[in-house]
Amino acid sequence: MSAYAELRAHLRQTAALGEIAGRLGWDQQTVMPRGANDQRAEEMAALEDVLHARRTDPGLGELLARAEAPDETGAAILREARRDYARNTRVPARLASELARVTALSQTAWEEARAADDVAAFLPWLEQVVALRRAEGQAIAQGADAYDALMQDYEPGTDAAQVAAIFDRMRPRLVDLRDRILGAPTPPALQGHFPQDAQLRLANELAGRFGYDFNRGRIDLAVHPFSSGSGADVRITTRVAEDDPFNCLYSTLHEVGHATYEQNIAPDYALTPLGHGVSMGVHESQSRIYENQLGRSRAFTGWLFGAMQAEFGGLNIDSADAFHAAVNRVHKGYIRTESDEVQYNLHIMLRFDLERALIAGTLAPADLEEAWNTRFEADFGFKVDRPANGVLQDVHWSVGLFGYFPTYALGNIYAGCLYQALRLEIPNIDAHLSNGDPAPATAWLADKVQRHGGLRPSVQTIAHACSRARPDEGPLLAYLDAKFADIYKL
Amino acid sequence: MSAYAELRAHLRQTAALGEIAGRLGWDQQTVMPRGANDQRAEEMAALEDVLHARRTDPGLGELLARAEAPDETGAAILREARRDYARNTRVPARLASELARVTALSQTAWEEARAADDVAAFLPWLEQVVALRRAEGQAIAQGADAYDALMQDYEPGTDAAQVAAIFDRMRPRLVDLRDRILGAPTPPALQGHFPQDAQLRLANELAGRFGYDFNRGRIDLAVHPFSSGSGADVRITTRVAEDDPFNCLYSTLHEVGHATYEQNIAPDYALTPLGHGVSMGVHESQSRIYENQLGRSRAFTGWLFGAMQAEFGGLNIDSADAFHAAVNRVHKGYIRTESDEVQYNLHIMLRFDLERALIAGTLAPADLEEAWNTRFEADFGFKVDRPANGVLQDVHWSVGLFGYFPTYALGNIYAGCLYQALRLEIPNIDAHLSNGDPAPATAWLADKVQRHGGLRPSVQTIAHACSRARPDEGPLLAYLDAKFADIYKL
Repeated sequence: MSAYAELRAHLRQTAALGEIAGRLGWDQQTVMPRGANDQRAEEMAALEDVLHARRTDPGLGELLARAEAPDETGAAILREARRDYARNTRVPARLASELARVTALSQTAWEEARAADDVAAFLPWLEQVVALRRAEGQAIAQGADAYDALMQDYEPGTDAAQVAAIFDRMRPRLVDLRDRILGAPTPPALQGHFPQDAQLRLANELAGRFGYDFNRGRIDLAVHPFSSGSGADVRITTRVAEDDPFNCLYSTLHEVGHATYEQNIAPDYALTPLGHGVSMGVHESQSRIYENQLGRSRAFTGWLFGAMQAEFGGLNIDSADAFHAAVNRVHKGYIRTESDEVQYNLHIMLRFDLERALIAGTLAPADLEEAWNTRFEADFGFKVDRPANGVLQDVHWSVGLFGYFPTYALGNIYAGCLYQALRLEIPNIDAHLSNGDPAPATAWLADKVQRHGGLRPSVQTIAHACSRARPDEGPLLAYLDAKFADIYKL
Repeated sequence: MSAYAELRAHLRQTAALGEIAGRLGWDQQTVMPRGANDQRAEEMAALEDVLHARRTDPGLGELLARAEAPDETGAAILREARRDYARNTRVPARLASELARVTALSQTAWEEARAADDVAAFLPWLEQVVALRRAEGQAIAQGADAYDALMQDYEPGTDAAQVAAIFDRMRPRLVDLRDRILGAPTPPALQGHFPQDAQLRLANELAGRFGYDFNRGRIDLAVHPFSSGSGADVRITTRVAEDDPFNCLYSTLHEVGHATYEQNIAPDYALTPLGHGVSMGVHESQSRIYENQLGRSRAFTGWLFGAMQAEFGGLNIDSADAFHAAVNRVHKGYIRTESDEVQYNLHIMLRFDLERALIAGTLAPADLEEAWNTRFEADFGFKVDRPANGVLQDVHWSVGLFGYFPTYALGNIYAGCLYQALRLEIPNIDAHLSNGDPAPATAWLADKVQRHGGLRPSVQTIAHACSRARPDEGPLLAYLDAKFADIYKL
């Protein structure tokens, strides 16, 4: 057997075990009995030990050194596998295991602190997590920047300077647009009681229309919507608020974007390093274009307006234009995940600057709440009322996801580029969407982005799909300007 | 760290990974999307490779050789772990992996053959499975009897000669009882339409009454009822036939017996070799005593009669005595799993003799169908009408479970001993059961049997619980004679 063939077999078994870990995560958040929590933690730790040993196995290092790629796919597999191996072997085993232990406990501490609005209770945990992740970033960076090193876990090939430059260009445009919108009359919101069963029926209908393959997936309820798994088993979750059907419907579309990306990757890539979305940013580009550019378009909401009338009876909103405005309502709010398309990236910018400073050591965890509140008021024009609506609102930092937040904004930027290219290539897409048929758009995305999995690095994936040199924020900003000028008569 | 402490850590991690494998099995049979089948097979194979490597790790052998037990629990752990290690290291890796591969495929072949009543199509698979398991038995036996060696996987400490002696004593008594019953008038069966929702509501109610802890378990629908997992996560499944509520209710009670055994094991034993039921026979004693001696008693069915009237409205049976007779109806039938308490063990005896002959090589797989049909007619007095009702009815042989069948009868025998002892110690148990309250009985079983897990070998477990030298068939036969003489006025 060649070194390359041996390597492929090793990676394949690791990937299969990795899928199992993902499936346990799904189980834990959907069907697991509550009392199984501690035992499950121990089971997961045992599996993570096995995975860590395989991923840092010196035998794997030897195979990676000796293997020669037979083709383009092989070259991409080696690129991904070598990067992962270098990253994993730079982190001392003790540090990796300490990080796993502390972040598991820290998440529970965060949940309790958020429920109690108690920043001080969470501070010791945050200090530990920041210190450990900084140490990890430094170990990976080998003298270069620790935050940049951490970003590679989520968006390989991108660094903080690039993101900062993009954000500097975007911020004034978004602030200006937001201010003009908030100066205009606010459209009415959708109101009423929308029974869970009917919401779930419609969410399933939407998932099917957007190409989710139920033969290789399923939809369950969970506290937080997520997509889990790759290849032939990609499950999503949703949630229901009976006074706000858009929560369920659009979080479902969001997860369907993530899930179809995984489902549509070329079967040959399954259980290889190319068999899952290439980066968090590209992943988010799929979830956001499904949810926003397609799902919140005037054309598709025109169809959805009829579908919701059929499902729920009369609505308090009586025209498709007003319905479109209700779906895209811009409002003052504290919470990133409930934010509209215009303000969403402003939330990301706040987190990006603060987490960079935390990892750099220029902001102490003890000063984070004040920094957050000051910055929030400056960016959003009103004060944070309580920590659960401020510094404690997101789970990310409690589990050590420093370097993750910018990928949300990159996803929006990539989605803007993709949508511009898609409209050029499918000029009559609105006619399909207004019939409730996103298939031409989702087929285009499957062909241009999804089926390629990890074949090309993230920026090249988007550039290739859009036939442009590299993605930038221009198309997203132009799309937002036009869309909200139309809705708000700016 | 002492060798014993190191050993405990090694075993604990293996047990945790083993729990994961069990959880994946549950997932596959309840919630897994159909299209995920092939990918799941690969994931399971990867995990089985990890488990096999750990279970045959020479480092484990060294620890087992060096470890000294600090106490009674430690001695039991060493006993179980040394037996498993000796067994696993005697089987060549190639044979183990070939067995895993062939039995996975053979199960599907059996399903298809059973659906088509096509014994010939399954024959090549049966020949392979028998040959592989015989080879495995011989490897484990090291010159002793291969079938006895295989039995150790399910009922350690028991051999075929012991079972044969018990069966020889039981057979004439059971045949005589069966013939007297079938000569008496047949009581009416329960008839009607029993909606799924109501059946499941009542099944959940029964599970709770029999002590199933929903905080550490859940009940789902599946094609075949089963219990899965140990410790803090023990899930069961049931199934519903809308014309036969006893199917759902009593298969639920059966699985609750298995599941509460796992749930009630001392928490200190969790993720150790003592942290699951000590043998299949003792496991079956719990499921059968819940289902039969308790669940099908005149006292409990008296309560159930009322509960079913409340749930389903008027029944076609109008007295508690007639209801008890309907629950315990003895009828001619082909299928083991649908058999009554009297004839069930006759089914087991048939399989025991045939599978011993298959493994000994005195019966060729090609001659199995004829041997089955001849024996069935001799034992049951009528001819098998088709293979799905005969030699193809059970999954066991297709997946290589030779040596498993006798544990079903041993379970009944153990249940008979336990029930005799339980009635001596809780003389008013019928008063509780007739109020729908099995708690005194299940608490007794939890204390005498379940909490001890694998502490004592199976025969000692039952002997200890019953304060008798060793379990035998006497109490079971006396119980059956008395119960059915009463119902059938013999």
